[in-house]
This record gives sequence, C-alpha cells and structure tokens, in this order.
Amino acid sequence: MAKKTTTKTTGKRKDRDVATLGKITDLAETVATNAFRNREPVVKIPTRTKSNTIWNKKRGILEMGDATQERQLFNLNQAKQFMQTMLHASTIKDLIDADKTSSLRGVFYKAKHTVAGTKENTFDTQDESDPILEDLEVALGALREELHIFAENRGTLVGNITIVDKGDEIDGRRMGSGGWGIPSIVEPDAIQFKKCEAKFVLHVEKGTVWNRFNEDRFWEKNNCILTHGAGQPPRGCRRLLQRLNQELKLPIICLLDCDPWGHYIYSVIKQGSISLAFESSRLAIPDAKFLGIRAKDFDACDLSDAVKIDLTDNDVKRAREILAYPWFQGHKGWQKEIELLLRNGFKMEVEAMITKDISYVTEEYVPQRLKARDWLD
Amino acid sequence: MAKKTTTKTTGKRKDRDVATLGKITDLAETVATNAFRNREPVVKIPTRTKSNTIWNKKRGILEMGDATQERQLFNLNQAKQFMQTMLHASTIKDLIDADKTSSLRGVFYKAKHTVAGTKENTFDTQDESDPILEDLEVALGALREELHIFAENRGTLVGNITIVDKGDEIDGRRMGSGGWGIPSIVEPDAIQFKKCEAKFVLHVEKGTVWNRFNEDRFWEKNNCILTHGAGQPPRGCRRLLQRLNQELKLPIICLLDCDPWGHYIYSVIKQGSISLAFESSRLAIPDAKFLGIRAKDFDACDLSDAVKIDLTDNDVKRAREILAYPWFQGHKGWQKEIELLLRNGFKMEVEAMITKDISYVTEEYVPQRLKARDWLD
Repeated sequence: MAKKTTTKTTGKRKDRDVATLGKITDLAETVATNAFRNREPVVKIPTRTKSNTIWNKKRGILEMGDATQERQLFNLNQAKQFMQTMLHASTIKDLIDADKTSSLRGVFYKAKHTVAGTKENTFDTQDESDPILEDLEVALGALREELHIFAENRGTLVGNITIVDKGDEIDGRRMGSGGWGIPSIVEPDAIQFKKCEAKFVLHVEKGTVWNRFNEDRFWEKNNCILTHGAGQPPRGCRRLLQRLNQELKLPIICLLDCDPWGHYIYSVIKQGSISLAFESSRLAIPDAKFLGIRAKDFDACDLSDAVKIDLTDNDVKRAREILAYPWFQGHKGWQKEIELLLRNGFKMEVEAMITKDISYVTEEYVPQRLKARDWLD
Repeated sequence: MAKKTTTKTTGKRKDRDVATLGKITDLAETVATNAFRNREPVVKIPTRTKSNTIWNKKRGILEMGDATQERQLFNLNQAKQFMQTMLHASTIKDLIDADKTSSLRGVFYKAKHTVAGTKENTFDTQDESDPILEDLEVALGALREELHIFAENRGTLVGNITIVDKGDEIDGRRMGSGGWGIPSIVEPDAIQFKKCEAKFVLHVEKGTVWNRFNEDRFWEKNNCILTHGAGQPPRGCRRLLQRLNQELKLPIICLLDCDPWGHYIYSVIKQGSISLAFESSRLAIPDAKFLGIRAKDFDACDLSDAVKIDLTDNDVKRAREILAYPWFQGHKGWQKEIELLLRNGFKMEVEAMITKDISYVTEEYVPQRLKARDWLD
C-alpha cells in the first residue's frame, strides 16, 4: 500500500512541484543575474496589508491588490529579511526535491543557524520565520501547501462520503465517535473524493458541539457531512470545505455562536481574511450559509435568561466593525442580524440550546431551519 | 449500522450505568433521609488537594488519600455548592436515563438558570461548574466518562491496529495523513481493540511531529502505533494509552521535548497528576518510557548551537520542582537527566532534530534509540 501511495501521489504531484521549483529557480536566477551585472539584488514582494486588500463584489471574495514592495540586499533595514527569504526558498527547494513536507516550525529550525564568523543568528524566533514564508507564498504565487509546508492538523469530519487520503480509503460513515482528522494539506494530489451521497455539509464551530451531532448521528439522519474547525477553522479545513463546495457542489451550512466571533468565523469562511487575501480564491466559499445561532432565537426558541451572556465593550466594538465590512454592508439580513444582536445586548452559544433538551439542537433546531431554508447567505 | 451500534453499546453500557445510577440514587436518598429525620443534609466529598495526594511507590502511581470534607446545606458558605452538587447529580441522571452524553459546557448550561423568585443564578460561569463535576466524580467514585460527560476530543492515532469505535471498524493502517481522532470517552463499552500487530506505541508531544512520523510511515516500518496528545494529553488520550498498555501489553514510548514541560507531560502519563489523582489507576502508565529528547543529545547527535533555547528562570524553577518529585527522586537516571538539562542551560525541541535532516528523527534517531533500548523509565 505504501508503494501504491507513493506512485499515486508523486505521479500527480510532479507537475505541481515542477512548476513550483521553476518559480523558485526563477527567483534565484533574477537575484544572481542582477548580482553578476552589478545591479542590486532585489526581490519584489506583494504587500499583504489591509490597504492592499480589495473586496471583489462580483466574485464575493477578498483579494490582494497589485501593490508590491522591494526587498533589497544592499539596504540595512532589509538585508536580513532578504537573506531569510533566500534561506527559506532554498529549504523549500530541498523539501520539494526530497518529496517531503515540513511544519512551519521545522522550516524555522532548518534555516536557523549562527552566521559563520559572527554572533548573528539567521533567525531568532519563529515569529520572524512564518511571515517570510507568507512572503514567499505571494512572491512565488504558490500556496504554502505547494511549498510542502504544513501547519497543525485541526478539525474533524464524519458523514456520507468516502475520501481517499494519500491512497487510503476513509469511509466517513464508519469513523465512530472519533472521526477523521482533517489534514493540514488537502490539495487534490493528496486528498480525493470518491463516493459521496451527502447533500450538504454542516460545519459547526466547536468539537464538543460536533460530538453532540455525531452522537445523535445527525449526518446519517440528514444525509450530510459533519465537520468542525476547532474554533476559527485552519487553512486545511477551509480548503477542504471549499473543495466539497466547488467539486461536489455541496452547500456549506455553518452553525456558529451568536456573537461577533461566530460572525467573524463565518465571514472568513465565506469571503476570506485580510491576512490570507492572496489565497481567497483557494479558500473562500462565497455561497456559504449561516444557519445560526440567530439573535432572534432567544424569542423564537423560547430560551431562558440563563443562556444570555452579556456583550462586552469589545464585543460591541467588534460587532460594529463587522457591521461595517463592505460585504456585510450591502446585506440587509446581516445588518438586521447584527443590529438585533446589539439591541439584545447579549450573545448566545450553540450549547445554549441544550437548556431546552440535550438533543434539541440536533433533532429540532437545525432540521427545522434547514427545512424552512431559514439562514443568512 | 446505527442500530447495530445502539444495541452493541447499550447492551454493554447498561451494567455500568445501572451501577452509576445506583450511586446517584444513594446520594439523593441519604440527603432526603437526613432531611426527613430533621438531620442536616450533608454530602461527604473526598478532598482533591496536594496534601491529600499520596505517592504509592509500590504501584508507582499517585493516589488520593482518605481525607474528605463535608458539604452542608445549612451552611452559608456551602449552601450554594450543595445546591449545585444536587443539580449536576440530577442532570447526570437525566443523561444516563437518556443514554446520551454531554460536554462539560453542556452540563453547565443544563443546570444554569435563575432561581425562581430571586436574581440568583444557579451557576454564573463554567469555572464554578467543572469542579462540582469533579466533586461528583470522587463522591460517587465514578469517572466523568461514567457520568456521561465528555471533554473536547484531542489527539490522533494511526498504526498497525484495528479499533472498534461505537461499532465502526477503524483500520489504523489506512487513515491517510489525517488519522483517527482520539475520542474523549474511550471506555471499553465504546472502544474495543480488534486486530493488533503493533509491538509498541510511540507517543509524540505535538501534531506537527506526528505528521512527520506519519508521512515517513514510521508506524509501518517499525510495526507500532503512533499517537499524539496535542501537548499535555487529555484524559481520553491517556486512558487509551493505558488500555493499550494494560490490555495489549504494548510498551508506551514517549518522544517529548527536552524541557520541564516535556518532563512534566511524561510524569503525568506515567504516575498521574495531583488534580486527577483519584483516577490514576485508570489513567497512569507506570512503565511508560521516555525515549527523548535527552539532554545528552546535543553532543550525542552533534547538533548545532541553533537548536539551543535558553532556559528561563521559570524553566529552572520547574525543573527543580520536578527533580524533587518523590517518583523522580529515587531515580538516578532522571536525577542525571534533569541535572544535565540545568547544566546545559538550554532546552531542545523534537523539531530541533530536523536541523540534521528532514527525516533524521524518524529514520535514525528513534530507530537507533529503540534498538539500543536507550530510554528512561
């Protein structure tokens, strides 16, 4: 099976890796050519700032603008970062050549050393290292996954789908109470979808809520896939949801807390984030839906005062910021939703539904809202 | 399959649940009987403090002593906790009657309400709620799992074993890059071991390290099971490791960072923790082994200065505390290990091994140490 895996993936992986290697070599060559021609070695890096983030209304996603900044070798403020960029580029080349992947921390350690004859370290902390890798992502126009770098696996999946993961068949219908851990890298050469009866994906915020839905076998009774992202879903989880949405045409329906954090998580799943705007087209899901918890549910579900959690000043501030997001501004439903949240003066968690009955949320709340197609999108 | 699952588990689960229900009823009856006899309603709760924690040298685990404290209804300082204890006891009865489980947060919400005719909430925050549940665990002599309460799932498993999880067969050899998420509740009625060729368990500290070992198919080449606990392993992960050790006689070999935190994690896996001393016999693994990273490895593996991370004052303090643990005091190997760590003045992470080569840790370091049986136990 190991063999099968290797041939299976490398066969596919090669083209992608050849492309990425080409980009790295080009980067190195422009630097070298400049040097030999006595020109200043320079790398152009697209700017990852709010000011260079554009809301593409037509596509419904956040995108990175054209602004770039130069990183020069002969500039005291940039020389170290220039060197760090080159170091990581060469580590990435090694990884791709060896057909291996490494963690962000692993790459940091690989490049970390004391510069010969000095007391200077190439890197002191990982905080210096991670942004350089994001610089390389945008400079090379290649995702971190294509650079063979992974983050912590986070999030879990069960449901009516068979997934092929590095050549292994994962039957989502037989994952018990544990579920399949969603990998950090879920690109098509590593993860393929095989047999899927599911009609939609229910994505919940937390693992404990996921447990409730899995224990009640919600995915079986409602023919769907059940995922969580352990809070703010990581790139691997978002990318998997997007692939399920684009390739299998499954609606992504989110069940998140009724608070600014829940709204922000939804916004990131749907339109992407500013810091990762350069890969919204690989991560964002413009037609993702927000099923709940809704501000109206306190009355609609006849909940008790005990579920109320007062909004903090910071919650109010965040809610107003989100209200002002261009992608929420044009949206009557969201304007109402957030205004009602602010009028209520309290937030509610998904777990609050348990005050009605242990399985109220899985057996009544979500099925009823799905039937009524009562969601925000 | 759903049916099969239900019959399968409830069939087994009943005896355990009957026992737990009996304990809850007894608790309620003693309280009621006292009340009717005009005696003070009182609950006896074993004390969960360091002073009531005993190091059982013979068994090699931490245990809870006999000290108990009374919780009285007619005592202004205890009345609220008394009420909270009763509330949670009744929620747990509901859970067991319904044959459902709930999260710590869910139980908090279930019991949280405003006392009729007052402005008093039964519970204000979950911080009040979780300790009451631990009180009930010790008072009833029943594990949280037996009270049908789960925590967040955490940790992942792959390897040469087939596990039955709520009636589903999980083939640890075919879990791809994601792995099987280790559930919070892994008691024998939920999780059974079926076919296991593995000769040992390699437990690593972090998910990113786990990824490296899984990608290099270490578990296949070395015929083992590969787990991680996302840092300090949660109860579910520890309990699963203990069952693999006790029922399948598999050695548990830990690969953790060379720092006081790594040493503490090992100590908890091996002897148990003070806060959970009352269930050490269900969680602790006295013969667990510490393979590395060892303080000697900087020289032994010829590592570069770049891997050194200076010990903070707090690290030094923690290291001295651990050095003084009775279960480390009698242990020459550990005395040397921690003293060398302190002499070195720096800590090292497992990821540091990547400075040698991407797969040095999986293809050379661990296999060599295993072959030489070079570990601390």
